[in-house]
Amino acid sequence: MSDDAVCDLCVVGTLAFDDVATPAGRREGILGGSATYFSVAASYFARVGLVGVVGADFPPAFRRVLEAHGVDLSGLEVDAGGRTFHWSGRYAGAMEQAETLATDLNVLATFSPRLPEAFRRAPYVFLANTDPRIQAAVLDQLTAPRLVVMDTMNLWIDVAREPLLEVMRRVDGVIINDAEARALARQPNLIAAGKALLELGPRFLIVKKGEHGSFLFSRERLFALPSYPLERVVDPTGAGDSFAGGILGYLAGAGEGDTAHLCRAMIYGTVVASFTVSDFSLDGLAGRPRADLDARARELEAFIAP
Amino acid sequence: MSDDAVCDLCVVGTLAFDDVATPAGRREGILGGSATYFSVAASYFARVGLVGVVGADFPPAFRRVLEAHGVDLSGLEVDAGGRTFHWSGRYAGAMEQAETLATDLNVLATFSPRLPEAFRRAPYVFLANTDPRIQAAVLDQLTAPRLVVMDTMNLWIDVAREPLLEVMRRVDGVIINDAEARALARQPNLIAAGKALLELGPRFLIVKKGEHGSFLFSRERLFALPSYPLERVVDPTGAGDSFAGGILGYLAGAGEGDTAHLCRAMIYGTVVASFTVSDFSLDGLAGRPRADLDARARELEAFIAP
Repeated sequence: MSDDAVCDLCVVGTLAFDDVATPAGRREGILGGSATYFSVAASYFARVGLVGVVGADFPPAFRRVLEAHGVDLSGLEVDAGGRTFHWSGRYAGAMEQAETLATDLNVLATFSPRLPEAFRRAPYVFLANTDPRIQAAVLDQLTAPRLVVMDTMNLWIDVAREPLLEVMRRVDGVIINDAEARALARQPNLIAAGKALLELGPRFLIVKKGEHGSFLFSRERLFALPSYPLERVVDPTGAGDSFAGGILGYLAGAGEGDTAHLCRAMIYGTVVASFTVSDFSLDGLAGRPRADLDARARELEAFIAP
Repeated sequence: MSDDAVCDLCVVGTLAFDDVATPAGRREGILGGSATYFSVAASYFARVGLVGVVGADFPPAFRRVLEAHGVDLSGLEVDAGGRTFHWSGRYAGAMEQAETLATDLNVLATFSPRLPEAFRRAPYVFLANTDPRIQAAVLDQLTAPRLVVMDTMNLWIDVAREPLLEVMRRVDGVIINDAEARALARQPNLIAAGKALLELGPRFLIVKKGEHGSFLFSRERLFALPSYPLERVVDPTGAGDSFAGGILGYLAGAGEGDTAHLCRAMIYGTVVASFTVSDFSLDGLAGRPRADLDARARELEAFIAP
């Protein structure tokens, strides 16, 4: 960890009220959002600073979930005149994909992230999914980034391809799901898509495949990691952002970013994601002792060893 | 290998004329069938005896593909009055699933497998997908099986569940795809499904997930193996039977069947399947030097090592 920065790892993303229905049950108004899942996951390994926005309706109890994990909330803006971002969705069957029922941007609609001075010096930065022009504006505020990783989604691939490609040229790594990788590369074969995306600028690409695990594409090597074998998934929401949080947190904590550390980081990303999906909201991950993560990392390593 | 048997590994399955259309092209009347793909894949590791049926229309050139791989065809019946089994199908997009356009059973409709005397003593046996009552009749002919593995499909799970469960109680292992595992266990979670199926009798279960690799479920451990990363898939037909052939061939050649050897066998199964899907029919696999398989096995091991 670097001692002259308030945080090792800065994340810019969303905080949300989620309504979720899965075969295991339904919940309304639970804590969600990309920055939320990312921060709690990353907090096991590094000092995390969160940049986002909520409305006046964001309850102290939700804030305390993040504070209990040592997440620095000095970059959390409260838009007193608005309501917190709200997402409603459901999953069926094997829960491969969320069906979005409603998205109310609320305070997100006008949010323009401003990083606290100390956060601008963060060596590790994660740009969660948002308009790539906003991601670019965050990049402009960084003074000494060592490793910047971005997420995106099909919406931006479709409606803001050029701004997205411009951000991709400025980051070190990209973490997206398989459908996004195929769409971005315009190539149905995932291996070919991954290699093509590496040509667009980033040093590495991590492709999330849900229950099928993840791929790392880098100049040095490819790496395939299965997901942790769970017999019961309660709610897949937040799996991808937890995965990214585990990865970036592990790298920031180790002060590394090379391919060998990326593979190790993916193991911890997979582990934190497996805890996230074992319950609604952050209930499966928040408050869990670090020893649980280490035990499951060893199990995952045994699971993939021939 | 056991020297007192004509074959180490006996496979009972189909030989077919396939019409296949994929995004990479289309072919008509090419060599296909479960026993065909299985035998050629297994031939790299063990002496294979094939039991199946063809019509008078089965050309010498197709027979020579198998003979060139040392496959013992003394159990190949020629039904002079009939035509060879014919399958027609197509794949789109990322080719996850075949759409069957036509299935003409022809000589298969009345086929009742009779194993040559020497084949009945084969220590390793693979029952490719067919009516479970036919699989049971093959089991009745075996005199000293050491390891018997079966495949099946959704049709039998739907229309012949009880006979299928009866065969499962009599075999050592089952190799099926993920949709079949979920349907057979009546459980959408694949890990829970796999564990439930182990309770039905077999000592191990291998679940094929196409481009997402495979899972081994055994009493001792779980093992997840990604597929070999191919940038170009030409035709997925035969991938599953090649995978099974590589696995059973490797075990028969080594004279083993424990969990540690199963993991190693899955690596070779994955490798031969990757050659199969790289071209139509057997064109990607048949005639390939063993050194190609070993090189790709090393690549696969590097691909999955953190």
